[in-house]
Amino acid sequence: MGTVVFIGAGAGAADLITVRGLRWLQRADVVLADALADPALREHAPQARWIDVGKRGFCHATAQADIDAMLLQLASQHAVVVRLKGGDPSVFGRLEEELAVVRGAGHTTEVVPGITAALAAAADLQRPLTRRGRGRSVALTTAMTREGDLSGGCHADTEVFYMAGKQLPALAERLLEAGWHPDTPVLAVSRAGWPDVRYSQHTVRMLASASDQHSGRPTVVIVGAGATPVA
Amino acid sequence: MGTVVFIGAGAGAADLITVRGLRWLQRADVVLADALADPALREHAPQARWIDVGKRGFCHATAQADIDAMLLQLASQHAVVVRLKGGDPSVFGRLEEELAVVRGAGHTTEVVPGITAALAAAADLQRPLTRRGRGRSVALTTAMTREGDLSGGCHADTEVFYMAGKQLPALAERLLEAGWHPDTPVLAVSRAGWPDVRYSQHTVRMLASASDQHSGRPTVVIVGAGATPVA
Repeated sequence: MGTVVFIGAGAGAADLITVRGLRWLQRADVVLADALADPALREHAPQARWIDVGKRGFCHATAQADIDAMLLQLASQHAVVVRLKGGDPSVFGRLEEELAVVRGAGHTTEVVPGITAALAAAADLQRPLTRRGRGRSVALTTAMTREGDLSGGCHADTEVFYMAGKQLPALAERLLEAGWHPDTPVLAVSRAGWPDVRYSQHTVRMLASASDQHSGRPTVVIVGAGATPVA
Repeated sequence: MGTVVFIGAGAGAADLITVRGLRWLQRADVVLADALADPALREHAPQARWIDVGKRGFCHATAQADIDAMLLQLASQHAVVVRLKGGDPSVFGRLEEELAVVRGAGHTTEVVPGITAALAAAADLQRPLTRRGRGRSVALTTAMTREGDLSGGCHADTEVFYMAGKQLPALAERLLEAGWHPDTPVLAVSRAGWPDVRYSQHTVRMLASASDQHSGRPTVVIVGAGATPVA
């Protein structure tokens, strides 16, 4: 029976992986890698067979079943199977399903955390997600639900919407419906953690206009206290 | 003028730092280190002068002014000053104030993200913070505000309370007042990311009884979807 290690590669370039994650990679027999994990990580585990599974998020239910099946098959053949995910596996990483499948077959599991996109974006922009006095909570939320609905969030002082890039006009509408002031600052950040990170500054009212600047790039949208620059 | 690099050491043992953070540490002339950052990180930067500043969180306003003054003085004397913080600097790390002080004096700043305690706890316990269908948002909240008030959170599907260890009875009361069902699952995790991580399972109603088990250990309290075990 193999050990399956779920590793967060971090949102961004290869050097955002943790040292713990890197060490497990170097012990891997086989790596099932997300599309969002930096391909440069391969150089750190040339001994392993690398298999790209080009998916993440809500869109490909069939592919998820294939990944589950591959994990089971590989875990029965190898001592150390790494499942490498972009960002952090515990945040919008479909970890629950893959853990349940692998454990159900009797394999040992480990989870190594990673830098989730909200943290990478805040670091890149040097805009902390929490602020003393006016930013005591930060919420990470999916813009899109399984049913294709959009959520307006839960009114933390700072809210970070994941997988929001294609839906900025609809997200702006939902934020207004949820009671956010139209002038609330909003920051859109795409490719956080990468050298080509790009950001744009908006308000809830004007958010729809941000779409073009981040087209085709993984984007998080930061609303509220954390969207403001540090003086 | 020096560069000041704010690095998240990650919540937990030294190997939870990112590779990017480690590389900056290895270039540091001087390191101002939080009490919560693993002292073992010193071995990776023996060339640097290490200064312990044993504080974090809301409790020591005077010490914060001292840290600000030290940062300024060191940045005027050295090329690379590292400010090493436990967890992630953008989440309850007082980053805004230190950034403003350092930038105000004309120094260059960089921020390297780290594994915040919520992610470390979720990985240790193998309990994802988000769950498909029933866990679409996760909020990170301070239990204690500057005024000493307790917040009941903002009703994300999963809420993680930081710096909650000493206040579990009061937190339970606030959660009930905020409308959480008394039977909502709650997980208390102390020393997340360390080999001696400890956890206990509760409900909102019974949370007060958790205090003894985590006494004197940095603790996060996870409420809601993310507190349940994976089947």
